[in-house]
Amino acid sequence: MEAIKQEFSVAYQYSVFFTEHLFDTNNKLLHNVLKELTSTSSSKILFVIDEGAARHHPDLIGKIRGYFESHPGLPALCAEPLLIPGGEQCKNDETYTRQILEAVNQYGIDRHSFVAAIGGGAVLDLVGYAAAIAHRGVRHIRIPTTVLSQNDSGVGVKNGINYFGKKNFLGTFVPPVAVLNDFEFLRTLHIRDWRSGIAEAIKVALIKDEPFFRYIESNAASLAARDMSGMKEIIYHCAKLHLDHIRGGGDPFEKGSSRPLDFGHWSAHKLEQMSDYRLRHGEAVVIGMALDVTYSTLKGMLSQEDAARVLSLFLRLGFRFYDPLLMLNLDAENRSRSVLAGLHEFREHLGGQLTITLLEDIGKGAEVHEMDEGLLLKAIKFLGSASVEEQANVTC
Amino acid sequence: MEAIKQEFSVAYQYSVFFTEHLFDTNNKLLHNVLKELTSTSSSKILFVIDEGAARHHPDLIGKIRGYFESHPGLPALCAEPLLIPGGEQCKNDETYTRQILEAVNQYGIDRHSFVAAIGGGAVLDLVGYAAAIAHRGVRHIRIPTTVLSQNDSGVGVKNGINYFGKKNFLGTFVPPVAVLNDFEFLRTLHIRDWRSGIAEAIKVALIKDEPFFRYIESNAASLAARDMSGMKEIIYHCAKLHLDHIRGGGDPFEKGSSRPLDFGHWSAHKLEQMSDYRLRHGEAVVIGMALDVTYSTLKGMLSQEDAARVLSLFLRLGFRFYDPLLMLNLDAENRSRSVLAGLHEFREHLGGQLTITLLEDIGKGAEVHEMDEGLLLKAIKFLGSASVEEQANVTC
Ligand SMILES: NC(=O)c1ccc[n+]([C@@H]2O[C@H](COP(=O)([O-])OP(=O)(O)OC[C@H]3O[C@@H](n4cnc5c(N)ncnc54)[C@H](O)[C@@H]3O)[C@@H](O)[C@H]2O)c1
Ligand SMILES: NC(=O)c1ccc[n+]([C@@H]2O[C@H](COP(=O)([O-])OP(=O)(O)OC[C@H]3O[C@@H](n4cnc5c(N)ncnc54)[C@H](O)[C@@H]3O)[C@@H](O)[C@H]2O)c1
Ligand SMILES: [Zn+2]
Ligand SMILES: [Zn+2]
Repeated sequence: MEAIKQEFSVAYQYSVFFTEHLFDTNNKLLHNVLKELTSTSSSKILFVIDEGAARHHPDLIGKIRGYFESHPGLPALCAEPLLIPGGEQCKNDETYTRQILEAVNQYGIDRHSFVAAIGGGAVLDLVGYAAAIAHRGVRHIRIPTTVLSQNDSGVGVKNGINYFGKKNFLGTFVPPVAVLNDFEFLRTLHIRDWRSGIAEAIKVALIKDEPFFRYIESNAASLAARDMSGMKEIIYHCAKLHLDHIRGGGDPFEKGSSRPLDFGHWSAHKLEQMSDYRLRHGEAVVIGMALDVTYSTLKGMLSQEDAARVLSLFLRLGFRFYDPLLMLNLDAENRSRSVLAGLHEFREHLGGQLTITLLEDIGKGAEVHEMDEGLLLKAIKFLGSASVEEQANVTC
Repeated sequence: MEAIKQEFSVAYQYSVFFTEHLFDTNNKLLHNVLKELTSTSSSKILFVIDEGAARHHPDLIGKIRGYFESHPGLPALCAEPLLIPGGEQCKNDETYTRQILEAVNQYGIDRHSFVAAIGGGAVLDLVGYAAAIAHRGVRHIRIPTTVLSQNDSGVGVKNGINYFGKKNFLGTFVPPVAVLNDFEFLRTLHIRDWRSGIAEAIKVALIKDEPFFRYIESNAASLAARDMSGMKEIIYHCAKLHLDHIRGGGDPFEKGSSRPLDFGHWSAHKLEQMSDYRLRHGEAVVIGMALDVTYSTLKGMLSQEDAARVLSLFLRLGFRFYDPLLMLNLDAENRSRSVLAGLHEFREHLGGQLTITLLEDIGKGAEVHEMDEGLLLKAIKFLGSASVEEQANVTC
């Protein structure tokens, strides 16, 4: 009997909106988006909120309630918002996934209803995952409240939680139905979270967009001083580059082994884990990029001037590009518990051949399929000594 | 700032193969399929096997090992096959999901490696789910060993497990990378499982393909007597109709509310659950179809002759189209625990407007958006009395 060949495509579309004061009664955005997406009068909406965001915006829950009261005809606000501790802890503990699933079950959230997540990248990843597996996928709206989630994690197609102590071991590729970026949330961020999100913007700039890198360079001082107008530009442009990559890169659900947007991430993921998440994602990504930029230079791919430009930008933004964890367990017998183990875990997570993006120019990534351990050790040592010097320079 | 509109498509392709003695050393199919799909030399394969299938095919595990030994260059058989109890129990207990995830972690199964499931629809649903969420999706091969899984559940794009006592509460839409149907497995099926899979073939025939219905009718006696050649035809044709529907129906991941392939299923799912899975899926689907066929007649959509033809085919194949569970809790105050609650749960699972497929002709489904409880009660009573009479007729 002849084999039957199956072939089809699934189309996805969603928009990323930018606004301020999303839940102000006279802000029509949420109303319009929900109207557009709602297909049935029995539709409901459940909000899941990052406790950190809620604590800094004590009127948030009241405003949500008020918004739905003054906009009749929207999906029913079927329950009190569910509060979830923010940050990596919510991805580390299965309880929270279960809590969201329980709410979906209890309030009868169906595949045409909405789960809306308000929070940082961690809460969005968690809620996106729970929404993706409940009823084989209920509609998910993201309302990112950190720089990183507004310009990167929240606008993409991935979600996940940590399992077996491994970052994002469980997860799916399922796009949201809408993303609503409200800049006002960013005002209350801890300075580390404000800064941390800039790392992903530098990342796309480095691999794809030299003028964008220059823009960030020339705005470094005001960004470090929490200037909002520069930050808005950066978020908008970074989100756009990210979305363009997903759409135009030919592999939105990453079936291949290449993942250019993960520049600097093989070591960053490992460092986050080794630090017990003391390091923020963006902080770890900065160290990871510093490592791969230095490696690119040692490999003869990138000029020393360009590498210095990158490291200096990090310092001007207030980042550290070195952490003592880089030195941990580097002796041969413990190496499997060092940052270098990140290479292996990165390959395993993506599958297939090891594929690492390095730089051949600012604005131009280049893929390699092996990394030389000797050179990596050299790069680590270089960063260690450079950070002592440079950080001394910067503070004097 | 202007909204950014995101739009892209994800393409899927896989083939459904038909064979016998898949693991015979001189059967090249598996070898060719794996060669074609393997993108990297570090690729591995983990087998997860339905204990029921393994018990009836005691040489299975040895043959798999032999196959990989005599076909070098295939993905590495990285561990002993994992055995999972067959049947609905494996979807009811989270432990099994965790066991599979643990194996994926322990043996380093990456996104370019394979998890191959051998078993009935329940084991395939479970393994497909675990494979879909591990590392955001490792490649999944299905080797269905029951009629139902070869002609229906195993060739489609869904997976899932039960949660909160609700069927398929957790799950995803993720197609396999290949399906390998080996008819030889079917010889050892319990007669109830042999028969049960025919239900889904009758289902697609009823809603889409009158000639196919006639084919099943004219082969009813030999099918009931476990004739393999008729069964092969039925499986092939049913699988094809199923795949055509997914490809051509315009909604492979069921984002809308219409699900014609779920003809007869709103009550079937509920009956399975009410029976504590004493009823096989196909047995429940037969009762569900009998109910909706009778309802279609009472509604004036379908002729009485056609309804009689359907019920009579069920009986000739050895099915019962009535179960006392249909009568349980029908009094007004307990109705939420009766079969009628299945309507509500079905709508909730799909979301949006209630959409039920009925029949207007044999081979022609028609959608309605409400069901009349009074008529449903009448249909249940009719089936109760008809089954007494007809089953008496058939046995005399
Ligand atoms: N899915 C993806 O594609 C993707 C991409 C990159 C990163 N991520 C994930 O994102 C996570 C990091 O996200 P993040 O950087 O947004 O940090 P985060 O989610 O860990 O949040 C950091 C802290 O900020 C708090 N917070 C959130 N909003 C606030 C606000 N408006 N004001 C004050 N405090 C607020 C949180 O409660 C938390 O304590 C990581 O888990 C990372 O793996 C996912
Ligand atoms: N994913 C989908 O699209 C989809 C569609 C329809 C049904 N399903 C699911 O499929 C499941 C039912 O599957 P099923 O009908 O294949 O039954 P099953 O998987 O429950 O298996 C029935 C019994 O047969 C045994 N068995 C399996 N292969 C055997 C063999 N070759 N010889 C002897 N015994 C064998 C099993 O151990 C089990 O005890 C349900 O959970 C149902 O929800 C899924
Ligand atoms: Zn990142
Ligand atoms: Zn079915």
